[in-house]
Amino acid sequence: MGERYFQHSFENGLTLLGEKMPGMQSAAMTLLLPAGSSTDPVDRLGSATVLSDLVLRGAGPRDSRQLTDYLDSLGLQRSSSVGIHHTRFSAAALSEKVMQGLPVYADIVRRAHLPQVGFEAARDLALQALEGLEDDPRGKLLVKLREWHFPSPYGRSSMGRKENLEKLTVDLAKADYSRRYHARDSILAVAGNIDFARISDEIQRQFGDWNGTAPPPLEIMPPPGNFHHERQESEQTHIGIAYPSIPETHDEYYTVRLAMEVLSGGMSGRLFTEIREKRGLVYNVWAGYSSLKGQGSILGYAGTSNDRAQATLETFITELHRFSDGVTKEELDRAKTGLKAATIMQGESTSARAGAIAHDFFMRGRIRTLDEIKDAIDAVSLDRVNAYLKQNKPGPFTIVTVGPKELAIPK
Amino acid sequence: MGERYFQHSFENGLTLLGEKMPGMQSAAMTLLLPAGSSTDPVDRLGSATVLSDLVLRGAGPRDSRQLTDYLDSLGLQRSSSVGIHHTRFSAAALSEKVMQGLPVYADIVRRAHLPQVGFEAARDLALQALEGLEDDPRGKLLVKLREWHFPSPYGRSSMGRKENLEKLTVDLAKADYSRRYHARDSILAVAGNIDFARISDEIQRQFGDWNGTAPPPLEIMPPPGNFHHERQESEQTHIGIAYPSIPETHDEYYTVRLAMEVLSGGMSGRLFTEIREKRGLVYNVWAGYSSLKGQGSILGYAGTSNDRAQATLETFITELHRFSDGVTKEELDRAKTGLKAATIMQGESTSARAGAIAHDFFMRGRIRTLDEIKDAIDAVSLDRVNAYLKQNKPGPFTIVTVGPKELAIPK
Repeated sequence: MGERYFQHSFENGLTLLGEKMPGMQSAAMTLLLPAGSSTDPVDRLGSATVLSDLVLRGAGPRDSRQLTDYLDSLGLQRSSSVGIHHTRFSAAALSEKVMQGLPVYADIVRRAHLPQVGFEAARDLALQALEGLEDDPRGKLLVKLREWHFPSPYGRSSMGRKENLEKLTVDLAKADYSRRYHARDSILAVAGNIDFARISDEIQRQFGDWNGTAPPPLEIMPPPGNFHHERQESEQTHIGIAYPSIPETHDEYYTVRLAMEVLSGGMSGRLFTEIREKRGLVYNVWAGYSSLKGQGSILGYAGTSNDRAQATLETFITELHRFSDGVTKEELDRAKTGLKAATIMQGESTSARAGAIAHDFFMRGRIRTLDEIKDAIDAVSLDRVNAYLKQNKPGPFTIVTVGPKELAIPK
Repeated sequence: MGERYFQHSFENGLTLLGEKMPGMQSAAMTLLLPAGSSTDPVDRLGSATVLSDLVLRGAGPRDSRQLTDYLDSLGLQRSSSVGIHHTRFSAAALSEKVMQGLPVYADIVRRAHLPQVGFEAARDLALQALEGLEDDPRGKLLVKLREWHFPSPYGRSSMGRKENLEKLTVDLAKADYSRRYHARDSILAVAGNIDFARISDEIQRQFGDWNGTAPPPLEIMPPPGNFHHERQESEQTHIGIAYPSIPETHDEYYTVRLAMEVLSGGMSGRLFTEIREKRGLVYNVWAGYSSLKGQGSILGYAGTSNDRAQATLETFITELHRFSDGVTKEELDRAKTGLKAATIMQGESTSARAGAIAHDFFMRGRIRTLDEIKDAIDAVSLDRVNAYLKQNKPGPFTIVTVGPKELAIPK
């Protein structure tokens, strides 16, 4: 992998990834555990989210307060989140401090205390987050769009369900911790001012004897349907549109990514210029590629006033169909410049790179260099984009709306 | 200013600032114009926002579409926004492309076309954004808190008012453009992989003969009052608390910033641990220092379920009062580490640095180096923080709530 990249898989199934970034003082860490919402038990949706909060409430030699105080004393800027495939813990700081934080993350994922009182607080917060979604019709639309578009269990929201969260107990959380926090299929990525040999030794010491058991395969079921309206007395109507695409590992991946840039990248993107700038129909409109392991989708959103909602939906679908006529050379050139610029700028952020190499490994089983990405973008020709768009008409569509009135679905 | 920084004020009143960042391929630009919401005419609130959109719809040799296409063809990631003091245009990309974009920004601020059709679209979008605020009670709270806390005209929302936006015309927008888009008090900051001599020449050529007229002084009026409830049938209650603080230029600035870190920095901050983690009262709570020219404030927010709102407000106020008892050495040490880490990480982002040096110049009339900031943080002693907190009790409070029920204001 040369001087810049490092990759090592331990026997227990944990993979360590590294990227050395010259000129940086900071380092960033991303730890992915195979505990995403798709592996929540079917009657306990939201348990990964409760667990991701609970594990931070005391671990190893430190109680909840001591753990938080210690990580803050290192100056670690950190976050945790639950996605479809993973629970993710991230941290960034001066590189030496990130090194000092690694043993604490080993405590968190291996030796969390999971106290009763902390469990109740964590569950209450999850219930509050869910309640807050009622005041956020846009957020609610995005949750519902995934639910109605992705095959189950990928369509689940990590926020869970009220009736499921209320049935959770600390004992169930403990069983869940054993089941889903383990080395097998976990990925730890570090980027920035780092020393590969030192990190590798430290990870071996902290995580080398962590147990790992292969998770059971997921049972994939089709989504509930293609069209859904969620009635809400909101001032605006929120519209979600989705349709299937190719997976990230497909040869035509950058063909699709560049086509989506033409549709919705930058401010010259077709959706923005046609729906927002020219027709003034919406304040906010976008569409983009969304990746799950082994499958891709296009997800789109528009938020508009209730009286313009029908026209917005129709124009949005028209723009998607217009794709089959192809894109121009100027559009493709702008798309390439935009995507390459974003890639290079990502190369200047330790947090972005730690996240990117972890994602790459999960999706592809290997790290891609920035040059490889740039070359793949450059290799896409106008003919290739237009042939792809002609042969792959958008659809079938999933259309979800949140607002006071149901819309007519264009045929 | 050494090898890293550059500062030059042109005769017309425009100031150019530069920061050279070794190891970066990108550059970022921030252009601040003296066209903030505080200089909107009193009966045309929101006009700076409409103008900031309209000026991008054609300028110099390019019509609206050509302008957008050209900036996207450079791969510029850009944004514009209207704050209290300024209208801001930002762009980031490979440094060479940012250089190529500079003449376009000269067109935008000096030779915008301001077409009728673009004006109507821009005004419609501003009206839609305002309408969308009705679906966003948290956003509405933050708008109302500023309105009720800051002296007028600083408390105005850049989103404007419906009845004012409806009265705007393209001719008023044109007059506004002449009045507020000029060199006097404008600031252009560039950070990243840059060549000072070359940028300086380019700015002289593009902006050197731009006219500049000193704006009239603002008439400052007290805010409407201290307590306000905005009735909304939301699922949660949103609480805003504000009180006056010292300006950024005050000797005790970092004393206050570090005290606020103890209150609300990192995850060990008192608000987070006391109100969220221990008592589970809220999903989201924070407080922070907010800076206007010549004056500072503390602004705080909590969002919670309606039945916990009263307890949340009381606990929030109790925590603020507990400040007078001082902070511990451990709390201060963590606050220093956190603030310094954030400063160093900011030093690795060209966009963050361009924004920071522009802000510094506006507030202080000069750029501060990262080392100066770190030294100022280190110089704050525990005794100094505790003496300050003892002598400066928080208050008088402005308290604003958005939700279905009015709360009792604690005395």
